[in-house]
Amino acid sequence: MPTLQNDTFLRALLRKPTDRTPVWMMRQAGRYLPEYNETRKRAGDFLSLCKNPDLATEVTLQPLTRFRLDAAILFSDILTIPDAMGLGLTFVAGEGPKFERPLRQEWEIRNLFVPDPAEHLRYVMDAVGQIRRALDNSVPLIGFSGSPFTLACYMIEGEGGTDFAHTKKMLYQRPDLLHHILDINAQAVTAYLNAQIESGAQAIMIFDTWGGALAHDAYLEFSLAYLQRIVNQLSRERDGNTIPVILFTKGGGQWLELIAATGCDAIGLDWTTDLAAARQQVGQRVALQGNLDPAVLLTDPDTITTQVSNTLASFGHGHGHIFNLGHGISQFTPPENAAAFVEAVHRLSPAYHTEKNG
Amino acid sequence: MPTLQNDTFLRALLRKPTDRTPVWMMRQAGRYLPEYNETRKRAGDFLSLCKNPDLATEVTLQPLTRFRLDAAILFSDILTIPDAMGLGLTFVAGEGPKFERPLRQEWEIRNLFVPDPAEHLRYVMDAVGQIRRALDNSVPLIGFSGSPFTLACYMIEGEGGTDFAHTKKMLYQRPDLLHHILDINAQAVTAYLNAQIESGAQAIMIFDTWGGALAHDAYLEFSLAYLQRIVNQLSRERDGNTIPVILFTKGGGQWLELIAATGCDAIGLDWTTDLAAARQQVGQRVALQGNLDPAVLLTDPDTITTQVSNTLASFGHGHGHIFNLGHGISQFTPPENAAAFVEAVHRLSPAYHTEKNG
Repeated sequence: MPTLQNDTFLRALLRKPTDRTPVWMMRQAGRYLPEYNETRKRAGDFLSLCKNPDLATEVTLQPLTRFRLDAAILFSDILTIPDAMGLGLTFVAGEGPKFERPLRQEWEIRNLFVPDPAEHLRYVMDAVGQIRRALDNSVPLIGFSGSPFTLACYMIEGEGGTDFAHTKKMLYQRPDLLHHILDINAQAVTAYLNAQIESGAQAIMIFDTWGGALAHDAYLEFSLAYLQRIVNQLSRERDGNTIPVILFTKGGGQWLELIAATGCDAIGLDWTTDLAAARQQVGQRVALQGNLDPAVLLTDPDTITTQVSNTLASFGHGHGHIFNLGHGISQFTPPENAAAFVEAVHRLSPAYHTEKNG
Repeated sequence: MPTLQNDTFLRALLRKPTDRTPVWMMRQAGRYLPEYNETRKRAGDFLSLCKNPDLATEVTLQPLTRFRLDAAILFSDILTIPDAMGLGLTFVAGEGPKFERPLRQEWEIRNLFVPDPAEHLRYVMDAVGQIRRALDNSVPLIGFSGSPFTLACYMIEGEGGTDFAHTKKMLYQRPDLLHHILDINAQAVTAYLNAQIESGAQAIMIFDTWGGALAHDAYLEFSLAYLQRIVNQLSRERDGNTIPVILFTKGGGQWLELIAATGCDAIGLDWTTDLAAARQQVGQRVALQGNLDPAVLLTDPDTITTQVSNTLASFGHGHGHIFNLGHGISQFTPPENAAAFVEAVHRLSPAYHTEKNG
């Protein structure tokens, strides 16, 4: 195995010493980049872009050409799994994802199956392999999936939303049915992520986008328990390298100790959480990834630099911090502001990794 | 002063012993009630309903006729203050509130003024007086306002939203301008709430609906600091009675100790917060109000009873809990489910107030 030219990201995830704080951006391959919009136009629509390994590779690499990022992330969508389950995923322009056949009837739920990644999600594995070859060991590639609960929300509602009325009615009235969906989803996510690792993904991130909409006890029972199961069943070593796992529950700032206790390697934090307090809570158990308010990138380079500086100071001296936004980059971000963000982390973070204070 | 027939709510807010846990519902006068929809139709539109003291009194009392609630809350809207500032509030059916003249230019911001409650918001004070007379000392009346930051979000964006791009750009790039708006808003809210108290409001609640969208440091500087100022300047005693103050930051579960430190009497909790953990954090400093997931009221009486029971057990034995939902009641709630909710609190809560365990 040839070694990575830049393993700062992987080292930080494992809380090993680094010279500076690694940085990447959630949704870094996306609509704020004119070259992405060009490629997407060529693909026809978003889903065709996801399903074309050549074009998925192209857009995955676009932000790395522009910015000194320490990781690439597979270009894909969290809804590939329910799409492979046959729910009929479509993206209506300006409206977000929709499923033609959302889960409403018990028989539909009982008929759910775990898709075989090598068959139904082959295009994702092809993209992972192709991106790894294109990266040529420059920086590591992150594979990802939505969490079982987040996938279930989309599968039951049929679209994104803010109140999740159907999902929550099922949760409170027919918890057995929701548990059945989550059980299938957890098996599907585990198989999907292990296949990504097998295909070359060097770190894994699980996006629990909607877990934060749950009441405390419901979060434990219907989201965290399934994250735990996946963490336990992932192939976390390959060719002698550890494959670190990052869990990100948006709106999960009240549950950090519980998330850390799953045995994941790192926790993604949204921008509402105080990094200093989070570090104190989780101690040496996990690395922390985050958490600049993505709205900061709508401002100007000086303001961005000030806010990056504040975030670095909040985590403080030492290792185990991966710089990122607290949520996906906004489509309205000027690319030069994203550049200023990445450069500020490169310029200001080495001071927090000096040996004396490390 | 004649005494209240039912002062359970006020006693609980001050952490005094009660025989059971008092209960009310955020947005209890609202669209889930057919009689509300009738009155609203008569008024013409939502804003006309707010501005007509007779009709506002009528809808305030409607849920009290149906359910054994321990408090009434003034029927009004949090946007009455920016409306009185001349921003041109309208409610487009199905789209929520909009301002004709959102704050975008510096001169517009510099021209903002503190509305005189006795003049520009006279209709609210008239409603408060009229509701008090109609209640005839049966249960206490809650007055309320939006928080300075939440009002600023609407004033700057011109409507509700989820990313608050204009507000956050101002926050990061021109904090002086946002502070100017917040300063005017804090003065306006203080004058407005003191006028409500003067007119007969017996408890005060401040809704910080959007504070939870802020980064940790920004929450302290741009929301909590102004809540603190209002808490300090409210007339918290009238005719020998304490007027308790409840602060509710939706999504504020990470900041409970900071909110408690303002010196408020109670904290409103959304449904994501674990009541037991919250009680442990804030100790004897404040009462806690909340926090059933409003989605539970979409289910059925048995499920509702189980969840009420769990919430009561989570707070545990003793005083200082006001039962409520973790957010406003959904318009899709069957009224008989709201009835089951209130009755479950009445039936199950006395066991948590026995002397032995009190």
